[in-house]
Formats: sequence, structure tokens, C-alpha cells
Amino acid sequence: MIRTLSTALVALALTLPAKAQDAPSPNRIVSDASAQEWVAIQPGDLLVMTLAPGQDGKPRTVVIQLMPEPFSQGWIANIRTLARAGWYDGISVNRVQDNYVVQWGDPNYDNPEAEGAAKTLPEGLNQVPESEYLVTRQRDELLKRTRLSDPYSEWSSFIDGWPVAVKQTTVHSMDYGAWPIHCYGMVGVGRNMSPDTGSGAELYTVIGHAPRHLDRNIALVGRVISGMEHLSSLPRGSGDLGFYTTEEADMRTPILSIRVASDLPAEEQPAFEYLSTEGETFARYAEARANRRDPFFIVPAGGADICNIPVPIRAIPGE
Amino acid sequence: MIRTLSTALVALALTLPAKAQDAPSPNRIVSDASAQEWVAIQPGDLLVMTLAPGQDGKPRTVVIQLMPEPFSQGWIANIRTLARAGWYDGISVNRVQDNYVVQWGDPNYDNPEAEGAAKTLPEGLNQVPESEYLVTRQRDELLKRTRLSDPYSEWSSFIDGWPVAVKQTTVHSMDYGAWPIHCYGMVGVGRNMSPDTGSGAELYTVIGHAPRHLDRNIALVGRVISGMEHLSSLPRGSGDLGFYTTEEADMRTPILSIRVASDLPAEEQPAFEYLSTEGETFARYAEARANRRDPFFIVPAGGADICNIPVPIRAIPGE
Repeated sequence: MIRTLSTALVALALTLPAKAQDAPSPNRIVSDASAQEWVAIQPGDLLVMTLAPGQDGKPRTVVIQLMPEPFSQGWIANIRTLARAGWYDGISVNRVQDNYVVQWGDPNYDNPEAEGAAKTLPEGLNQVPESEYLVTRQRDELLKRTRLSDPYSEWSSFIDGWPVAVKQTTVHSMDYGAWPIHCYGMVGVGRNMSPDTGSGAELYTVIGHAPRHLDRNIALVGRVISGMEHLSSLPRGSGDLGFYTTEEADMRTPILSIRVASDLPAEEQPAFEYLSTEGETFARYAEARANRRDPFFIVPAGGADICNIPVPIRAIPGE
Repeated sequence: MIRTLSTALVALALTLPAKAQDAPSPNRIVSDASAQEWVAIQPGDLLVMTLAPGQDGKPRTVVIQLMPEPFSQGWIANIRTLARAGWYDGISVNRVQDNYVVQWGDPNYDNPEAEGAAKTLPEGLNQVPESEYLVTRQRDELLKRTRLSDPYSEWSSFIDGWPVAVKQTTVHSMDYGAWPIHCYGMVGVGRNMSPDTGSGAELYTVIGHAPRHLDRNIALVGRVISGMEHLSSLPRGSGDLGFYTTEEADMRTPILSIRVASDLPAEEQPAFEYLSTEGETFARYAEARANRRDPFFIVPAGGADICNIPVPIRAIPGE
């Protein structure tokens, strides 16, 4: 079945509620989804990042979901290696640039005001080539999915719960390149000048409008799915690129640890699930995000960009 | 002269620097603009919002540029009336919703946990109709400007330094509707259910990915041009829609005053200018934002959405 936003629109126009007040909100559509449409995220694909407690003494935990195969697996293997080596323990948030990114890592690496020697990296890290910034897919497979108009590619879509952009790789081929998108909350790998693609020791997350010019220029490896507010509300750095200056060194937030959730005791493992992006409910949710008809709204937008259709993710209640 | 991003692309391809390292960054293009391409913002179009000092005791000033005619003038007249009546003095930031908005106003109005009676509004406020959410323009005039592919309209563009979306109003007309866009930092008018369009007493600014579904559903009146970090880094509220709960009442940031800059003593008036969006430099800047060729980048994006092309604004150095 070919499912596009425009065909979804036509289908829904026939069944529009008689009164606008009856139109369900996107959140309502999601909460009405059947249990089978939710996909549990494996603990091996979750990182638990523990920041030092805030000024109010409260704990600050951030949960990151890593991307599944085939995306960015070279860097993601490195991230698991770094986490299991304890390398991340004791690093800090060194850069907070408004409407751009929060970046964490070794304050003495990739920092205009580094004061000391960089930490030694563990053995066994991959050097990942730029070619892994995208994966190749057959056109027919991609056409089956929700498609959105996109200024950065032929169209944008979702694969296994992740926002991707799509473009033909060569004129005479049915091969299409698909690459992940820098939406709010996505996590990427800091790097220096090309051909360095970064190891995974420096990571950042997007805290503003999607910086899509970074797509295919930096590796995306995951997204923050819980605790985003602990990063997005940090004070901005006043140095170049939002790094904290030497005088602001005490504004760096310490990172106590980053663990792969499957390495934690079972009772400490977070449990999350996402709404399948291949199901009927997601298609209805995406259409409702593009055409809000719930009572507050006057004019439906008639479209949406992919980063304004966040994939629904929720904690699985404890048993 | 018809100027579109695609024609700009063709023109620039002929003059591409021999080495990628020579390609100027967007910021460099802007800093090389001639003085004549910068437009001074009138003090009557600037609001100075003074928040209570932060925990570090430092002052927190936010400067907002109001939109020029013909956009949203009914609400903007109200905002000047409210500022001149001192109505805003002593209100607070009551709502901080991650990846969405920071909202300020009377904590006892439009707040799910209001505890007391709402403040009385001054005389002389306009009731503004929904029809003022957009303005009408002739197609020929709009075609002269930089045009961008846009999932929410026929195309997006810039008018007098502001991002707008454009769509034909009726099939058999050359009239086009143009409306301002909810990019990061834009300021809008909180409202209740339609047909209420809000008075201007409740204002918000965007602190996340552009919530474009609000375009034509809420009035936009301006943008934060300085001090955005004082709003975007505030702690998120844990109540519905990011409002601070009753238990979090002490997290509301007090607003000491909001003044129209032209009402301040000359030496206290902020002075800002923006890069004309009708000039050659802006067209080159927009093209460079869409196709980064400065040394860090590997793959130019081949496009950009309008909120990823922020209009350059800078303080005019004191004389």
C-alpha cells in the first residue's frame, strides 16, 4: 500500500467529523493507539546519562535511544565501548549554544579554551568513513512509507521510528540514499575538520530549530527520549560557539556516568516504547499534526515539516 | 529582477571559488556587507523587557523588535498601550514548555493553576479580528523576492526583514496572502479559544523547533533580538503545557518592566540594525546557508527552510 500524506488527506476528508470540536488532537490519536502499535526499545539501545544533581539537589538523568541498524553503527559501537570502559565518567557539558546544541565530552578536547591534556581514549574504537553518513535503500521500499515535502531532499519519511531524508543517489539507478535528520533532541558525534568523522567521545544534542545543514556532515547516533530539559535549560556559554570560557569553567555540568541500560541491574533499567511509524495510527497522527482541527485551531496548516512530527515515545509503566 | 534561490544557485555556480577552503561562511558574507545594506530599527519598534536579576545577581534584559506595518498592527498598538500604562510591570514568566514556548503575563490569567483574580486591563485596547493574521499582497510584488520551498505554503520569503509564508487567496485572483512565520525567537500573542485573538497582555516566544502549525492561528507581533538566552534557559514547568504549578510558584521569573525604547532616556535606548532582506548580500547569505561550502562541511544541503536562515541583526555600536 502506498501511503503518502496527500492520499491520507483525501481519505480523511471523507470521514471528517461533523463538528470541528469532535476532531481528535494528535495526542488523543496517539493515546488511542492499540498496544500492538507500540514497539519496545531494547535496553541495549538505551544510554543512561547521570548528570551531577542540580542546584536544588535533585537528580538529573537523561535517557538516550541509540539508532538501530543500519544507521551509524560504526559510531554507535564506539559509544558502547566508551560507556563500558567508563570513559565518559567524569567528563562534562562544555558547550551550550542557544538555538543550536548542547555538547559534552572531555573539556580539554575540541574546546577553544582547553586548559590541559586530553583524556586517553580506550582501545578498539572504529575509524568510521564519511560514507556511513547515509544508507542505500530501494526506491520501492521507501515509497511505501509516509512521505513529506522537504526543502532538503526529494522527500522525508520515517524508517523504524526515525526521521530520514531521501534522495536518488545516481540518475540511472533505483538506489536511494536515506539519512537521519537533525531534529530537536537528536544526538550527534562532534568532530574536527573532515576527513575526521569523530569517535563518539564528543556528543551533542540539538536544542533549537533543526540545523539540517549538518545532515550528512556529522553522524547522528540517537536521540534524547527523557530528561531533555536537563540539557536544554542549561546556561548558555559566552565563548566562541557557546563553549564555556575559562572564567566560566564552574558552569560546566559534571557527567557522573553514562551506561548502556542493559549493563545496569534489571531494576534500574529504564523501559520505553515508541509508536510504530509504519502503522495506521502514526499515519493519522502525522496527518493531524499537519492539519490541526482540534478546537483551539482556526486554519489547518496544510502540511508539516518532519521535525514538527515528533515520533511518540513513552515510558512503559513498571510492573 | 526575479530572484529565487534556484537562480541564485546557478549564478553562484559560475563563480565558485577554486578551492572549497576559499568559500566564505554565511557569517563572513554578512560581516562583509556594506553599511548601506543595514537598516536601523526605530526605537518605537523596540521593547525593553527587564527581568529580575538571576541567581548570580546579574541583570537580565531582553530586547524585542515589533513587526512593522502592515503586519499585526492591532495587537502591536495594544502592546504599546499596555507598556505605557505600566501594565506589564510586576507580571511574570509563568510557562516554560520544552521545545515549544516561554510565556509571560498575569499568573492569574490563562493559567491552569491560577490562584487569584486577574489584573484589570487598561482602557483603549483593540479587539483585533482573525482576518489580521495575514495581509494581502500582489503576486508580482512577492515574486521579486527570495523564494524558498516550504511545506506549509506555496513558498516562503522575506518582507522587510521578516520571514513570511505565501499562498494564493482565491483561485481566480492575483491576490496572495502573506503571513509571518513562527521561527525560533518569534513573539506571539497568547489567546483562549477562537474567536478570542488575545489582547497582547499575554505574550510568548518560541524556544524550540518552529511550531508552524500556529501560523495564522495566533498573532505574531515581533521577535527577541537580544537576551534570548534569559528566556530559553529558564527551568521548564512541570504543569500542563509547561505552566509552573502552584508548588513551583517561586520559579516564576518576575518581570520588573516592559518599556517602548523610544519612551526611555536617549542614553538608555538600545540601538539595533538588520540586514536588508531585499539586497544582494542577503541573497548570497541565504544561498550560503542552503549550501555550506566553508571548510567544515562535506555535503552542501541543497536547500534550507526559512527558519534555518535567520535574518542577521546586530547592535549598533555606541558613538
